[in-house]
Amino acid sequence: MTHGTDIGEYVEGVLAGHRPTLARAITLVESRRADHAERAQRLLSALLPHSGKAHRVGITGVPGVGKSTFIDALGSRLVGRGHRVAVLAVDPSSTRSGGSILGDRTRMPSLAVEENAFVRPSPTSGTLGGVARASREAIVLVEAAGFDVVLVETVGVGQSEVAVASMVDCFCLLTLARTGDELQGIKKGVLELVDVVAVNKADGPHADDARKAARELSRVLRLIQPAHPTWRPPVLTCSGLTGDGLDDVWQAVRDHRGALEETGELAQRRAGQQVEWMWSQVRERLMDRMLGDRGVRSVAADVEAAVRSGGLPATLAAERLLAEFAR
Amino acid sequence: MTHGTDIGEYVEGVLAGHRPTLARAITLVESRRADHAERAQRLLSALLPHSGKAHRVGITGVPGVGKSTFIDALGSRLVGRGHRVAVLAVDPSSTRSGGSILGDRTRMPSLAVEENAFVRPSPTSGTLGGVARASREAIVLVEAAGFDVVLVETVGVGQSEVAVASMVDCFCLLTLARTGDELQGIKKGVLELVDVVAVNKADGPHADDARKAARELSRVLRLIQPAHPTWRPPVLTCSGLTGDGLDDVWQAVRDHRGALEETGELAQRRAGQQVEWMWSQVRERLMDRMLGDRGVRSVAADVEAAVRSGGLPATLAAERLLAEFAR
Repeated sequence: MTHGTDIGEYVEGVLAGHRPTLARAITLVESRRADHAERAQRLLSALLPHSGKAHRVGITGVPGVGKSTFIDALGSRLVGRGHRVAVLAVDPSSTRSGGSILGDRTRMPSLAVEENAFVRPSPTSGTLGGVARASREAIVLVEAAGFDVVLVETVGVGQSEVAVASMVDCFCLLTLARTGDELQGIKKGVLELVDVVAVNKADGPHADDARKAARELSRVLRLIQPAHPTWRPPVLTCSGLTGDGLDDVWQAVRDHRGALEETGELAQRRAGQQVEWMWSQVRERLMDRMLGDRGVRSVAADVEAAVRSGGLPATLAAERLLAEFAR
Repeated sequence: MTHGTDIGEYVEGVLAGHRPTLARAITLVESRRADHAERAQRLLSALLPHSGKAHRVGITGVPGVGKSTFIDALGSRLVGRGHRVAVLAVDPSSTRSGGSILGDRTRMPSLAVEENAFVRPSPTSGTLGGVARASREAIVLVEAAGFDVVLVETVGVGQSEVAVASMVDCFCLLTLARTGDELQGIKKGVLELVDVVAVNKADGPHADDARKAARELSRVLRLIQPAHPTWRPPVLTCSGLTGDGLDDVWQAVRDHRGALEETGELAQRRAGQQVEWMWSQVRERLMDRMLGDRGVRSVAADVEAAVRSGGLPATLAAERLLAEFAR
């Protein structure tokens, strides 16, 4: 489909906010074919000057926490207030088909039929690096297409929260009231990334538990996050089902942005994210080159086994691998 | 000093537990001179089969938490029970002189004069990578010299806790009772690495506060560390000054080792640490090579500036840098 189309048509279509073209442009960016990659980079270079105007918000939470219902309800509210909302996903475990919106008609029934919303499932290219790259680049495309709110969802497989936190302005955690001794639905390491926390499903008989959990979580956050000069993550309660508290959550997201803008941190954060992202791709592809090297491949297993068994010092082993690569 | 000595003498001296030779061998391993590096690797290869028998314990805590007094008191107790105790340090901010033990006579007055203790200040080679490499390799040397307990101290600069946690069997956090709203002396990210926690300075009027802090911390740990099948980090109280609770802390460290040994995790953990360490050195030195490349250096600043200002997509920028390197 994308193969015969010229880049110029993509650029015009995306800038005009033409949704089918936007969808195809994202498919091009997601592609791992070498000939696609070159065209994708030309497309991105052309659209980059038109990007950057959206509020980028990451949303994480383990399965069952009610992310889809939350995003559907929040997104619909924002559309109702005149926003244009794009929903992207970073799910390295996803097996949904790359272009199909069928899954999202079911997952986000209100947003899926909105003229001013664009819901895109996670790319399915397997590695977190690949999926995260595609989503970062999709942000550029949906921004160029005029979407002013980008919600990036992740289910939190592997390091995907870290990847999403490093591509958004504000990182939100959805969780549930605890049952028993554990806070439900919080993955290790996530609390240290969050800017806003919401205890979801705070409705009906669960409302009290949710408020208790929010207080507990607020105390935990104070303990493990050192004081930040401009922002202390609030812990709110909400219900994606009834809509209660969604306005407060969004207000917290806006307050967070306001705090970052006031100090100039927002622009710095975004610039820093791009530079860090560039170097992380350099590192990753340099290692790919090395691991794909014939000489390295011929010795790597033996060298690693020798280190594992304690027969070879790690530093010497690293030198041997690097010497193979240098040949 | 180390330059004229043959490797064979080092090997014999270290294996005989000759402390001046051990000290010089560590200096050789810490050296960054190219001719030293080659000899250091031969020395390590010769001693590696004689290493691995110690209990390796990391100890972290911010300045003021009483680490030196704690280690001095704990180490002396262990020596009193027939152990041979080596104390190493990973402090990338250290400006203490590499070979001098003067600082440690003051910091650890009891251990410094023990026949069966060996206290070595942090190497001062600047980068965390260099300091951590030297300390990992010093572990091999002190084990080959017959020390059966290795305490690796870190003050927690940068990522040094992560570095230390990945070279020891058990990672302990020393902290203090909180004052006001914050837990004192806990650095971001550390709670997720810990195997044993001790609230120090639990003496005199502070004992009650310390117990309260320990309970609070125990609850936080339950919340942020997912249940591990074989080990849940205990939170104890102790006083390096009076010695109260030190036996309990050491017992917890032993229990932890017992739990890991029972499941075979200890051997796996150590083998995995070595392999991970090898690859991390490969990655680091590959990047060093790239950043030292003349072509890359000639364009890196401009490319990074273009990415920072939003003029160049990060993926394309990464490709340009890699293309320069490939030339």
